[in-house]
Amino acid sequence: MTRQTEIEITAYDWVPEMAQGKVKDMRVRWALNEIGLPYRVRLVVGAGNDKSAEHLAEQPFGQVPIYIEGDISLFETGAILLHIGDKDERLLPRDEIGRARAIGWMFAALNSVEPYAQVLSIVGRTASGKDWQEEAEDAVRPLLIKRLAQLSSALGERHWLEDRFTLGDLLMMDVLRTITEPDLVSVHPNLAAYVARGEARPAFQRALAAHMEVFADA
Amino acid sequence: MTRQTEIEITAYDWVPEMAQGKVKDMRVRWALNEIGLPYRVRLVVGAGNDKSAEHLAEQPFGQVPIYIEGDISLFETGAILLHIGDKDERLLPRDEIGRARAIGWMFAALNSVEPYAQVLSIVGRTASGKDWQEEAEDAVRPLLIKRLAQLSSALGERHWLEDRFTLGDLLMMDVLRTITEPDLVSVHPNLAAYVARGEARPAFQRALAAHMEVFADA
Repeated sequence: MTRQTEIEITAYDWVPEMAQGKVKDMRVRWALNEIGLPYRVRLVVGAGNDKSAEHLAEQPFGQVPIYIEGDISLFETGAILLHIGDKDERLLPRDEIGRARAIGWMFAALNSVEPYAQVLSIVGRTASGKDWQEEAEDAVRPLLIKRLAQLSSALGERHWLEDRFTLGDLLMMDVLRTITEPDLVSVHPNLAAYVARGEARPAFQRALAAHMEVFADA
Repeated sequence: MTRQTEIEITAYDWVPEMAQGKVKDMRVRWALNEIGLPYRVRLVVGAGNDKSAEHLAEQPFGQVPIYIEGDISLFETGAILLHIGDKDERLLPRDEIGRARAIGWMFAALNSVEPYAQVLSIVGRTASGKDWQEEAEDAVRPLLIKRLAQLSSALGERHWLEDRFTLGDLLMMDVLRTITEPDLVSVHPNLAAYVARGEARPAFQRALAAHMEVFADA
């Protein structure tokens, strides 16, 4: 048996049902499962509650996951994934161009697609019950619709965003599958098939099962 | 004289006055100036206009900048900065932990702070002139206020987010200085001083001058 430094990640001990399956530790669990790296989970006080001083000392914004491996303590899912990706070429190609392109798609998922999904979701939440809710949602929805159409064009008939699966796909598929209005994605058959391709991966299934188990126990 | 592959970035040939000084090519110009790397700029049709098919083929979301260096063509500012950072330890520490922490702050700037500034700015823009504009802005502003307070606590009395300047600071300072309601930042004296520290850097000044020159010519 190979001896290796143990990996620990944090996850919330509870989140509302609508967020279950969608918390950011899913992305890290998924990546670790893709390369068969074992990890242990430390649960922290769940979403929506006041964060402990201890949690804020480790993670300035009170989010999950944190990633600990030996002397390394990391936060921000994107940075954690990049760190994990450099361990195994199944997640990130080793050649300079392939690696840089995959990282480009990671940032595209987090900065060119997800923010517009977040705007729609935040407007929906903060306007909830107001008489201007629908009008406000209608005003921001086109921004996401435009980005999804551009992404659909970029993906075309390929299976992955580049010529093979990378962390760029893992992040993009997870962004797409957690959009609060799934019809905006499924109107593009190639994006729907892309998300289904991600969800069919055994590593995704194992990650999701482990992620959900926490809430079943709660 | 050292021979090196020429670097080309794209920038918009025109943007509205309120966006001048704030377009994403600023971040890449700044980083290149920090390490004295020359680059040339290729102008593309400005913000708000229909993007050419050529532009969309290079950049699926029609954004700037693109970064071209020999056989490498990259998009997404975060990915471009990471690529540049790996060229010079003045931007990214070489030790594993220092590098990973700096990258963590890059993602924090782009994913834990900027999205909430974007929500406020997008809501302001899309609600402009509606009778629910103020109520909508008031509903989303607290999310950004909270993140800025957490960032202020994390920075404390230090000059930089870690023990030295890194790309994490460059991105975070640029996110802070482009927030549409500057008072939300300046209410925290340490964040105001942090932004001023960034803007005082000669590399920032050179980048800004070159960025603005495009619009002066337009």
